[in-house]
Formats: sequence, C-alpha cells, structure tokens
Amino acid sequence: MTEECDGKCESCSKADGCDDPRKEQYLEQQMLKTRMEKIKRKIAVISGKGGVGKSTVTVNLAMSFAMHGYVNSVGILDADIHGPSVPKMLGLRGQKLQAIPIGIFPVMGPLGIKVVSMDFLLSSDDAPVVWRGPLKMKAIKQFLSDITWGELEFLFIDLPPGTGDEPLSVMQLIPDMDGVIMVTIPSEVSQVVVRKAVTFARQLGVPIIGIIENMSGFVCPKCGTETSIFKVGGGQKIAHDMSVPFLGSIPIDPEICRDSDNGIPFITEHADSPATKAFSEIVKKIQRFLENPMLLREMTVEREK
Amino acid sequence: MTEECDGKCESCSKADGCDDPRKEQYLEQQMLKTRMEKIKRKIAVISGKGGVGKSTVTVNLAMSFAMHGYVNSVGILDADIHGPSVPKMLGLRGQKLQAIPIGIFPVMGPLGIKVVSMDFLLSSDDAPVVWRGPLKMKAIKQFLSDITWGELEFLFIDLPPGTGDEPLSVMQLIPDMDGVIMVTIPSEVSQVVVRKAVTFARQLGVPIIGIIENMSGFVCPKCGTETSIFKVGGGQKIAHDMSVPFLGSIPIDPEICRDSDNGIPFITEHADSPATKAFSEIVKKIQRFLENPMLLREMTVEREK
Repeated sequence: MTEECDGKCESCSKADGCDDPRKEQYLEQQMLKTRMEKIKRKIAVISGKGGVGKSTVTVNLAMSFAMHGYVNSVGILDADIHGPSVPKMLGLRGQKLQAIPIGIFPVMGPLGIKVVSMDFLLSSDDAPVVWRGPLKMKAIKQFLSDITWGELEFLFIDLPPGTGDEPLSVMQLIPDMDGVIMVTIPSEVSQVVVRKAVTFARQLGVPIIGIIENMSGFVCPKCGTETSIFKVGGGQKIAHDMSVPFLGSIPIDPEICRDSDNGIPFITEHADSPATKAFSEIVKKIQRFLENPMLLREMTVEREK
Repeated sequence: MTEECDGKCESCSKADGCDDPRKEQYLEQQMLKTRMEKIKRKIAVISGKGGVGKSTVTVNLAMSFAMHGYVNSVGILDADIHGPSVPKMLGLRGQKLQAIPIGIFPVMGPLGIKVVSMDFLLSSDDAPVVWRGPLKMKAIKQFLSDITWGELEFLFIDLPPGTGDEPLSVMQLIPDMDGVIMVTIPSEVSQVVVRKAVTFARQLGVPIIGIIENMSGFVCPKCGTETSIFKVGGGQKIAHDMSVPFLGSIPIDPEICRDSDNGIPFITEHADSPATKAFSEIVKKIQRFLENPMLLREMTVEREK
C-alpha cells in the first residue's frame, strides 16, 4: 500500500508490485468497463412483479433482433439468480458456461444468442440458490465483468421481481443503460407493484422505453369468445397515469406457454399468431426508441393523453 | 460491557446498567420469542416463482380459517417488501399501522384478520422500496417482534419470489414454523423454479405441507371448452417427483382476478364457483396436516406413487 493511494492505479508508479485491496477493486472496475464498452446497447426488462412474462419478453426480444440483422450479435444476461428461466425458454438447460484458458464464455443459443445464467452454474436442476443480497451482487458483477461477451450489438438483461439487490446492482454496474422495458399484466394487483418499478427506474435516472401489457385478454380457440382473464388495459393505464410510452398488448395464448416449455421462442414457432403480430409491433416501437429516444417518448405520451 | 458477557442478560447481575450492544440483541430476541409464543400456528406460503398466486392463496387461506371458527384469531404477515399485494387484495390500501403508546398494531381486515405489510408504511402508492437485503431482514424482524400481534391461532406469511433474503430471514426468525405451502402454476418453466423452493424448504428443515397448483386449466364461460392456458398437472408432477403432498388444483377463473382487484377474497364473493370448491378441499387437507402432520404426508406420497 502507498500512503498517497487514490485508487487510480493507471497513474501510479508503484502499481506493479502493489497488494492494496483497492488495486483489485480498480482492476475489477476496469474489466467491467472494458467488457461493457464492447456492447453497443444495453436494455433491461423489469417489472417489480413476478410471473408477468419478463423472461418471455426478454427471450423473444433477443430472438427478434437476432432474426432481423443481428445474428451472433445479441446477448442475454439472466439476472434472476433464484429463479432463472431463460435457459429453459431457449432449450439450453443442462449446458454449462465454458471456462477455457483464454476466458469464460457464454452458452451459445439459437442464432448465436449468447446467454449467461445462474442455471449454467448449478450442479443439479433442483438446487436452489440460497443467497442473500451481497452474494447476488457479486455474482451479477462477475457475470458482467468476468465473462467474455465479446462484441455485441445488444445485451438484454432479464431482471427478477422486486426493486432490491439484483435490479439495483445491474443499474449501478451499467450506468450507461439505454433503457428499461416494463412488463405488466393488466390486473390492478399487478399495476400496484409495476407502478413502483416505474418510480424505481425514474429515481435511478434510467430511461423508460415503455410498458408492455402481457396476458391481455384470451380468445377461446373453439368459439372465439374473448374473456379478460386478468382484465385488459392495465398497461395503458400505468402508461397514461405515469406518462410513460405504451408499447403494446400481448394476448394470452396457450402456445406461448407451450413454446416456452419446449425451449422455443413463440415468435419463431408461431410466426402468424396474434401474439407474434402484437410482439412485432412492440419491437418496432423499441427500434424507434433506440433510433431516437426523445421522439418516441413525446409521441407516445401525447397519444396517451 | 462486562468481560465475562455471554450474551445471556437474564442471568447477569450487571444487566441493568449495561450498554453492551449484545444487550439490545438479546432484548430483541426475547421480544421476538415472546410475540411468537402467543401465535399457535405459523404457516408460510412460498413458491420461488413470482406471479403464481401466493398472495391470493394466503389471503383466501386466512379468510377460510377466520370464517370457520377463528374469527379475530388469524394474522397475515405480508413479507413481500418490494411488491406487497395483500393490502390490495383485502381492500386495505391506504391504511396505516397504528402506533399508540402501548404498541404498534396491525391493520384490522375482514373478520378481524390482522395484517402487517410494508404497504402500510409507505408515504405514496407508487413509492418503491429500494432496499438491499440487510434492510429487508431488519424490516421483517421488526414486523415479527415490534408489532403487537396479540394471541393468534394462525399466522400466515406471504413470501416474495426467490430463495433469498426474505424467505431465509422468515425461516430463521421463526424456527418453529409449522410448515410451508408451495404454490405453482402448471407450466414447466414454473416447475423448474418451484422445485428449487422445495429443496430450499428441505435444506432448512421446514415441513412441506404440500403443493397447490394454481391457474390450472380454463373453461370458456360461453361454450364450456377447456383450454390449458398454462397446461395442467405440473403441480402433481412436482409432488410426485419430489415426494411431497399434493394439495389440489385451482382452475383459472377471471372472477379471482376481479375479486383480488376489488379487495374481496374470492372464496367469500364466489362461494359456489369451481375455484372455491377446489380451494375448500385444499383447506381440508391443510387442516388434516395440522391435526396430524405425519398422516397426510404418508397418505399423499402413497397416492402419488
């Protein structure tokens, strides 16, 4: 340790033989920065509420971008340490991160989507991760800094429910996040929680790309009658009340559940379904946001007024 | 501080004027013990997965027991710090915990159900709780030890998704937990996560009362066609594979969502619905477990083989 240590090793003549713990911290930060600089766009999918379809949205978004010009250039970080679902939804369960002398590599999914998930590190399918916050923070940090993500156009981050350790860690570790996509189901119970996540994103200064309403209405495949199982319109309501863009509604479709269970994104397996069509419109709005963040925001809030 | 402090203030002659931090810890533990000794049965509702209906199950379980002999003797601890849903589901939003000179009191719900939730402490509906693990642990501890719960027959604890800080804290703070009830939806994606929660409960040595399958099948109100929106049978599968009791399936019913949004437990509002009938059978099994924990376990595992 040097007495004058300011934690900036790059300008320190004694850095080489230094064993101050701050050096390790500095190196970690530099590594994180170097990895993240190679990824052009970082987008998190958040909700606050569980079971609303964050992972389904993440997986299908990644697939959508990979299919439309970004093969081998999309990554997914499954930041749900306790309940990772991304590997199951992409048919990647049982795979492991590849640790070879030159680095640790993500698991390769369809169309070259690079996936990192806690699931790839567990010894058994049924093993829970019984960790408190600090360990989860550490894991997420390592997922971002120690994995050889390489050059990517997009990194989608699937966040767990809540506004605690994992979302907070991700937001702090990636200060240049392009934006977050909120997912809700229409019910008021879900709205109550998702509204808190909107405030959370605002408090942290992360742009809100918009809200997706998932599980919106259900059309009986036999008689065509529409039943609002979880109601309809809750996503628009949050968007209107809180002045954030509304991206669209995805109807309930039993095929989505089946496709997820089978490890296939529904947009590829059921390309002509109303859900896929709705999802395509949502992706277009996200693309427009990425091209011009201010334009979409103004337009959508105006439309919702 | 005394040099020979063993943290047991009751047998220490210098306890009166002592300012050792261990005294505070000791007093906290004693307070927690005293509060919890007045509550006969403690049951947690857990899942690992979000959005599967933990809060709906908790609220309706509490209501069911309150209706059948336990008016004014049931409590609910909403341990979901980030996404509290219990107040909304019981029509108690906007209420506050009552702090008067003789103690802090739970909010009183229907049939004298005593409810404690983070929601009763927030200044605004949209305010998120942006806390990391240690603060959440502290809050849960205070909910259990600092609140005047009084004499109760049952305390139902609604846990958030995951197997992290909150579930871990609750299990550690209530070592004599009677058991946990697991909730899942039938999908394989949900099963993957709920299986981890089963292992979690086992690792902590907490009895598993059984698994409830929620959102199991949907019958079109117009034509009567049944559609397995999230599939059917996933709950039984976990029960079978992991040798835990299966408590029953609750069908998808749009009324459940509407009742929850309206702050009314569905078992009282729609007493004759298939969902309520299914729920009543589940409650009977839980009662049998509480009367004789070993009997139900043996029976159910046998039946599932």
